[in-house]
Amino acid sequence: MTYHSAIDVITTKRDGGVLSDDAIDWMLDAYQRGEVAEEQMSSLLMAVFFNGLSAGELNTWTDRMIASGERLDLRGLSRPTVDKHSTGGVGDKISLILAPLVAACGAAVPQLSGRGLGHTGGTLDKLESIPGWRAQLTNDEVRDQLESVGAVICAAGEGLAPIDRRLYSLRDVTGTVESIPLISSSIMSKKIAEGTGALVLDVKVGRGAFIKTIERARELATTMVRLGVDHGVATVAQLTSMSSPLGRCVGNGLEVTESVEVLRGGGPDDVRTLTIELATIMTELVGLHVDPAAKLDDGSAYEVYRRMIAAQGGDPDATMPIAERRRVVAAPHDGVVQSVDALDVGVAAWRLGAGRARKEDAVSVAAGVVCLVREGDAIVAGQPMFELHADDDTHLQAGVDAIANAVVLGEQPVNARPVLLERITN
Amino acid sequence: MTYHSAIDVITTKRDGGVLSDDAIDWMLDAYQRGEVAEEQMSSLLMAVFFNGLSAGELNTWTDRMIASGERLDLRGLSRPTVDKHSTGGVGDKISLILAPLVAACGAAVPQLSGRGLGHTGGTLDKLESIPGWRAQLTNDEVRDQLESVGAVICAAGEGLAPIDRRLYSLRDVTGTVESIPLISSSIMSKKIAEGTGALVLDVKVGRGAFIKTIERARELATTMVRLGVDHGVATVAQLTSMSSPLGRCVGNGLEVTESVEVLRGGGPDDVRTLTIELATIMTELVGLHVDPAAKLDDGSAYEVYRRMIAAQGGDPDATMPIAERRRVVAAPHDGVVQSVDALDVGVAAWRLGAGRARKEDAVSVAAGVVCLVREGDAIVAGQPMFELHADDDTHLQAGVDAIANAVVLGEQPVNARPVLLERITN
Repeated sequence: MTYHSAIDVITTKRDGGVLSDDAIDWMLDAYQRGEVAEEQMSSLLMAVFFNGLSAGELNTWTDRMIASGERLDLRGLSRPTVDKHSTGGVGDKISLILAPLVAACGAAVPQLSGRGLGHTGGTLDKLESIPGWRAQLTNDEVRDQLESVGAVICAAGEGLAPIDRRLYSLRDVTGTVESIPLISSSIMSKKIAEGTGALVLDVKVGRGAFIKTIERARELATTMVRLGVDHGVATVAQLTSMSSPLGRCVGNGLEVTESVEVLRGGGPDDVRTLTIELATIMTELVGLHVDPAAKLDDGSAYEVYRRMIAAQGGDPDATMPIAERRRVVAAPHDGVVQSVDALDVGVAAWRLGAGRARKEDAVSVAAGVVCLVREGDAIVAGQPMFELHADDDTHLQAGVDAIANAVVLGEQPVNARPVLLERITN
Repeated sequence: MTYHSAIDVITTKRDGGVLSDDAIDWMLDAYQRGEVAEEQMSSLLMAVFFNGLSAGELNTWTDRMIASGERLDLRGLSRPTVDKHSTGGVGDKISLILAPLVAACGAAVPQLSGRGLGHTGGTLDKLESIPGWRAQLTNDEVRDQLESVGAVICAAGEGLAPIDRRLYSLRDVTGTVESIPLISSSIMSKKIAEGTGALVLDVKVGRGAFIKTIERARELATTMVRLGVDHGVATVAQLTSMSSPLGRCVGNGLEVTESVEVLRGGGPDDVRTLTIELATIMTELVGLHVDPAAKLDDGSAYEVYRRMIAAQGGDPDATMPIAERRRVVAAPHDGVVQSVDALDVGVAAWRLGAGRARKEDAVSVAAGVVCLVREGDAIVAGQPMFELHADDDTHLQAGVDAIANAVVLGEQPVNARPVLLERITN
């Protein structure tokens, strides 16, 4: 790697040029060493926001992010590995169900996850509602549990693509989060470093997701699928709707309870449908020919879930605590539910205490929202639409305020919009 | 001023929105206080590079830069004040002649200047070739000298738009120098804070200037003229050619000598023409009806120059030292000079020792280039084209290397391009 001037790298990208592999390697490496300053990296990131990265630039950028840390080696397990990543949605508890389900189908699922920030909850936060459950595992523990149980959901180690943590923190305060190549390299560098052989991407689109339009979701999905495939990871993306919350429950403990319902063969239709679809893609990617629905209905997915929770110190039989303060929000008049706004519900759950505004904040186990109506329901004045849960009255009132306009009532009949939108393959 | 989120300010500009006055005030003020980080300001500057600033935003931005420091009050002088700013060119010694000339015409010229960086020299560096001359004056000394002599060329005090120093340093390392609104606010905030009543802008365009095209020069000039007028400073811009060096001499002491030639009624035509044109604009701006050419020819401009230099401790009769090492570059064959590249000559003078690469570098008094041919000259093989001056052989050789391709010889007759291009008024 030869020396490059940070200013030349920035102005090349700023002026629409293509960065050489060597320039990208040098820039990220020098940033990691502290030789390129934060203010230089942030101006480059803003230039990337405007001018993008070509497929070649993005591959090199992602390579370098992976090379900034360790890469797990999951070869040699007795099962094929396949993981899922979701771009984040309101009520998105799919991982809790999907990982044990796909393990029950015969694959190994190394689900290395992050925590939630903002209005969409994190998988680790949800699982930490379970007494005793621990998110931190060593690499050896991950490997052992994949072999013995077939599924692991745990915190992504600090050693995987460590430069992403710095870049993400920088993007977070410099208005450079919303860039397709930067989002793609952030997600994919960690998933590739994690060592999974195959990957399904659940790309959420709609009011409650950070991607608002189908066009942009397609662009992100296409970019990530190509990055995965170019790095030897069989990758497929499923675009899914996030205009309404997923399932009925939004909140950490509430979502664990709902996940168990689905694992026992019940639960809301949309959660079950999406989980089965993603499980089907995942099993197909690794060449397994099984019917995931059957594995939910015959209890084998639930059995794997119990072993997965127990392996990480959790009590799979623990019941979730019930919130101290609860409030029902009722329909103001008769009508047909035209929409249930996922963003409003997500923000309400967050304000109720289920989410965090800053990384160091704690989250409430019991706080959240139970959605009692869905798009297309005909309801009458006074009928409960939401049940809000919080640990104290201040949070409860904040939730009430946030959810006030979440439901639009009208007179026209409405068909609930499908969850599954499009599949993107290479 | 209410609190704003730096991220909101950045993303608003990034997404093409218009920043409120309050948001701009808050952002620059919080940056000055250290509350907005360098990496946040640099990403905003890059967003401004891409999306620009509206006239209203730019006025507010510039106001805030002015408000970051003191504003000189030059009202109450017995003469009207008028200043000149040049965007920087190779061989641009116009200030040394123009300030005393316009003072001889009856105005007061408060020329608060900076030092050179890169391939174009700074006015202060040139004047510091004169033994005893000092660039640092107090505000009271500036005012007194304007009253007694009518012209001051000195270092802009640290108190004028101090935030510009920080913003400029940041832009310099983050690839955000080349932005019309950022350049305009940087130049105009200092000129407005300096307290001049009128201003002429010499906007250089061509290979040897940092603005390469006439379109961009027009845009910059129009933006700065509007900023000046909106702040109560009568402002006119003159676009001038910087494809060839201005005059024959490039280098600190060499340019002082050439300036004195012009002040005594001689010197190169292009220097004299441009100086008289700018003096005409300046005197018209403040309502003086005089013929600047006459003031060069009758010795009154030179007399003011001598008093101006002496007032700041300099010896106006000192002769400039002659360089230890000199080399003539001769024509390789017969031909007509198609062009003399200002950038190449500027870089050669810089390498010879006349300029600095870093702010803390010293500059040589004697080093530089004397151009012995001009566009359109028919010359013969072996005829001297340049005389290079340096303090040692290493610098001399660096200059020889840099100037190798500065002259293009051809067969077609060529008319020298005019120096004066366009005038931009409000």
